[in-house]
Parts: sequence; structure tokens; C-alpha cells
Amino acid sequence: MTELTIDQKKQQAQDWFRTLRDRICASFEAIEDEATGRLSDRAPGRFERKSWDRVNQADGQPGGGGVMSIMRGGRVFEKVGVNISSVFGTFTPEFAKNIPGAADDPRFFATGISLVAHMNNPHVPAVHMNTRFIVTTKSWFGGGADLNAPLPNAEDTADFHAAFKGACDRHGPDYYEKYKKWCDEYFYVTHRGRARGEGGIFYDYHDSGNWAADFAFTQDVGRTFDDIYPALVRKHMNRDWTADERETQLIYRGLYAEFNLVYDRGTTFGLKTGGNVEAILMSLPPEAKWP
Amino acid sequence: MTELTIDQKKQQAQDWFRTLRDRICASFEAIEDEATGRLSDRAPGRFERKSWDRVNQADGQPGGGGVMSIMRGGRVFEKVGVNISSVFGTFTPEFAKNIPGAADDPRFFATGISLVAHMNNPHVPAVHMNTRFIVTTKSWFGGGADLNAPLPNAEDTADFHAAFKGACDRHGPDYYEKYKKWCDEYFYVTHRGRARGEGGIFYDYHDSGNWAADFAFTQDVGRTFDDIYPALVRKHMNRDWTADERETQLIYRGLYAEFNLVYDRGTTFGLKTGGNVEAILMSLPPEAKWP
Repeated sequence: MTELTIDQKKQQAQDWFRTLRDRICASFEAIEDEATGRLSDRAPGRFERKSWDRVNQADGQPGGGGVMSIMRGGRVFEKVGVNISSVFGTFTPEFAKNIPGAADDPRFFATGISLVAHMNNPHVPAVHMNTRFIVTTKSWFGGGADLNAPLPNAEDTADFHAAFKGACDRHGPDYYEKYKKWCDEYFYVTHRGRARGEGGIFYDYHDSGNWAADFAFTQDVGRTFDDIYPALVRKHMNRDWTADERETQLIYRGLYAEFNLVYDRGTTFGLKTGGNVEAILMSLPPEAKWP
Repeated sequence: MTELTIDQKKQQAQDWFRTLRDRICASFEAIEDEATGRLSDRAPGRFERKSWDRVNQADGQPGGGGVMSIMRGGRVFEKVGVNISSVFGTFTPEFAKNIPGAADDPRFFATGISLVAHMNNPHVPAVHMNTRFIVTTKSWFGGGADLNAPLPNAEDTADFHAAFKGACDRHGPDYYEKYKKWCDEYFYVTHRGRARGEGGIFYDYHDSGNWAADFAFTQDVGRTFDDIYPALVRKHMNRDWTADERETQLIYRGLYAEFNLVYDRGTTFGLKTGGNVEAILMSLPPEAKWP
């Protein structure tokens, strides 16, 4: 088999993230149609799309862009955003130092999908998923998914981890152990002395030397997400909840916002360097409390 | 007049911040008693106090502490915290480099008062005030106050600025211009391209060479706050509000939380270096929205 050119790799990755976006949006809209619980007198939620263009800060030249798909005020999804983007340009010298393969040639390309879902029902876990393909003079995949339950449930946590362990094990015997640990370390809210949620997997700089295998792994992570998360949502979405449970959820979301605004590298870097604010802050909860 | 010893200065500053705390808490409780608006079927809000001890990270030794005074769920004040603290220890070498007078001797003492008020009524501006006295091998005052109105009102903004201009002008002809500008620069939410609020004054490293005069200035800032802010609260507290106005307030509070968690030096430094989390995050709004 002929090795793909870097442009073919970029195109295949970008096409996949768009396909995955379409699948997930369809899965989530199907859930909206099925819901019979507390808020099912509402019209089923639907995604709205909005595209944005990026301009490189360094030279004012076009630098790609993306499409946000957002569903708000659904029966099940209180606010969920699914962003895809493909961006390119040159890193600032300071930033380039910390990026593999960028020290001597600061040009980059990045394409990916990013998703955060905040749910009406406190029994339904919130979730984050993102996968991406980055190209400098090197290239690699990154991403992961983690569960964020306001009212954690051992069975959901086990099912979520089992699903991603399955995805990892299909591609590398040590992937799950390594990427679960990375997730636990990354999504830790130091000042609260606790994890942001129930974990999952987190990987970066993933380059085994076999692009096709690495791409297949990232695709499997996306498919696994589109399999396990809707299953967890369906399991709980028609349960009722109390005002106290809603309050617990809103306070939990305060912690979630704290993590994203204080620690999350993508968020803080994006905000401080002129990223698309609306797309970056789509991750913030629709409502949160610090009582 | 004999120059005070540094220990006397520390004591006087600390005593003043406690006195100011008592005055402000009394002012705010009086407002609660007077309120006749929408939520006046509630019992008048009262402050609850909670003290905390600080341990130095470097050596595990006692490092002072503070007292939080918090009123929640009042008729007028949705959540207001007034912290006083006196802390001491040694800065880490990395941190000491950026602190006047600490490069060669990293020991420090800091005493201050910090206040954030979030209001039920969106017509009543939120507010932040803090003043402090810091001692290394040098010593200086810092602080300020800024208005944060969900529904800005030109008259309130003018009155707030006029009050602090008065306080500044009583102590130095260039203080207001300098410290208003510093406030505008500091409380800027870069990623939103807007100010956090209506400004006020912000000062740091304030050391004119005359300690008594500088202390008098900081006392005047505190008294001015305790004069102008209650006046603004009384002006609006009995007005009714609409659901749309409340929504505007909750979204504005999202921006407020973003500033505090992404940019505010005290917050991010405190959270990342083991400060008292409850006292630091007291500034966060009781409820916020990112719809």
C-alpha cells in the first residue's frame, strides 16, 4: 500500500471529523425525539449550525475556520455544542518551542472535533469528547472523552470506561492504561482536591509510526463515544429528579466551569491568543451556581 | 512625630481592616432591614462569620489566617462576602522575583480586606472592593473598588467615579487619573473585548514615602466605599425587575466569573498555590448563565 501524502492525511482526517459530527448530531436528535420524561412537552431539540472564519494573528491572513453545531433547550440536552474546525498558520516563536516539530518551522495545520454536552436531567451525566489531527513538521493525533456526572453512578462509570478500554485494546495493549492515567491527571481540579469527573481517556502526541493505524484508533474513539454516551443518556433520560438534585448539578457545573477557565489548556490558550471565543466557551455550562 | 515601627504599622493596618469590615457589615445589614421591595418577605439577611488558618506551603508552619463574613439569600444581597486576612511566610523563589523588596529576603506579611457583592436585583450594581498592606523589605498599600452593573446606568457610574475621585483628590492630585486608568486596564476581559464593569480605581505598590499619608488614603478609599455603595444600593433596591433583566444579570455574571477565573491575579495565583479556596472563590456569583 502506498503511504498517503500529508495532504491526503489532512483531508481524510478532516472528512472523518465531519462525518463523526453528522453521526453524533443525528444520534442526539434521535434521543430528543424519543424522550418521554419531564420536559417532553417541549419540541424535540435540534442543532443549529454556524460557521466561523479564522484569521492568523501574525499576518492577518486567512487561517481556516470551523462550524459550530449547537442545540439548546432540548428535552434532554440543555446545551450541547459540537465544533469541527480545520485551522492553519504559524505558531508564535514562544508557542512553537513547546510543540513537537515546530521549533524550526512554525507552520501548523490542525483539524478536529470537540463536543461538550450539559443535560437537563441531573441523573444524566454531562460529557466531553474531542479528537484532533495536528501537523507540523511532525504529525500526530490527540483527544479523548471523559464523563462528568453531577450524580455519579458506579455502573455508568464502569460502562463508560469499559467502552473506551475496548476501543483502546483493539489498537494497542498499553493504550488504555496509559490514556486513562493521562485523563485522570489532566482533568484534576487541584484547588478542589478532586477530579473534574469520572475520567475516561486522554491522549496526545499519538504517533505510533503507522498513520493508518493511528487514524483507525482515533476513528474508533469517536465511534465508541457515539455508541456508549447515547446508551447512558437513554438509560437515565426519562427519570424524574428533585430540586435538590438539580441544585447539586448546578453546583457541580460551577466546578466544571472552574476547571475549564482555570486549567484547561485549550480554553486558556484560546482565550488569550484570539481564538474563536464563541466556539471555545461553548463548553461552559448553560447555568451554574456557587452558592 | 516619631515614625512608627513596622510592627506598629502592621497592627494599625490590620486593626483598620477589621474596623472597616465591621462598618461595612453593619451598613449592609441595615440595608437588609430597610428593604421593602420584591423579596422583603424574606428575613433580613445577616452575615455569618467563619475563620480559617493558613499554613505555609514551604515549611508547614502556621502562616496566619482570616475571617470570612458571608451573607447569603438576603432581601437585597444575594451573596456578599467580606474577607479579612493577615498572612505571613516566605514567597517561593520564583514568585519572590516579581515582588518588590523580596528578591533577597523572601519573607512577607500581608493584611487586607476583600469584598464582592452579588445582588438579587439586576438594577442594583454588583461591586468589588479590596485594600491591603503588604510588607517585604519594602512596604506598600494596594487596592481599589470597581462597579459591576448588569444593567449599567450612567448616573451610578458617574456617582461612583466622583466619589473615588474625591477620595483620590484628598490625597494626591494625580491619584485619580493614574488609578482610574489602572483599573480600566486591569479589569479588562480581553477575550470579550470589553471591560468587566464600569471601572473605579485600582492601585498597587502605593508608597509615597509617607506611611501615615498612604494609610490615610487607603482608609479614605474604604470609607468612601462604605459611603457611595450603600447609597447606590438604596437608590435601586426597591425597584421591580423583569425575567429578561434577571437573565441579563445572570449572563453578565458569566462574564464576571470568566474574568475572575481566567485573568484575576489574586484568584489564579491563590488557586494554584494552595490559598484558602473558599475565601478566594467567595467572589464567584451565586448563579450565572452561559446560554
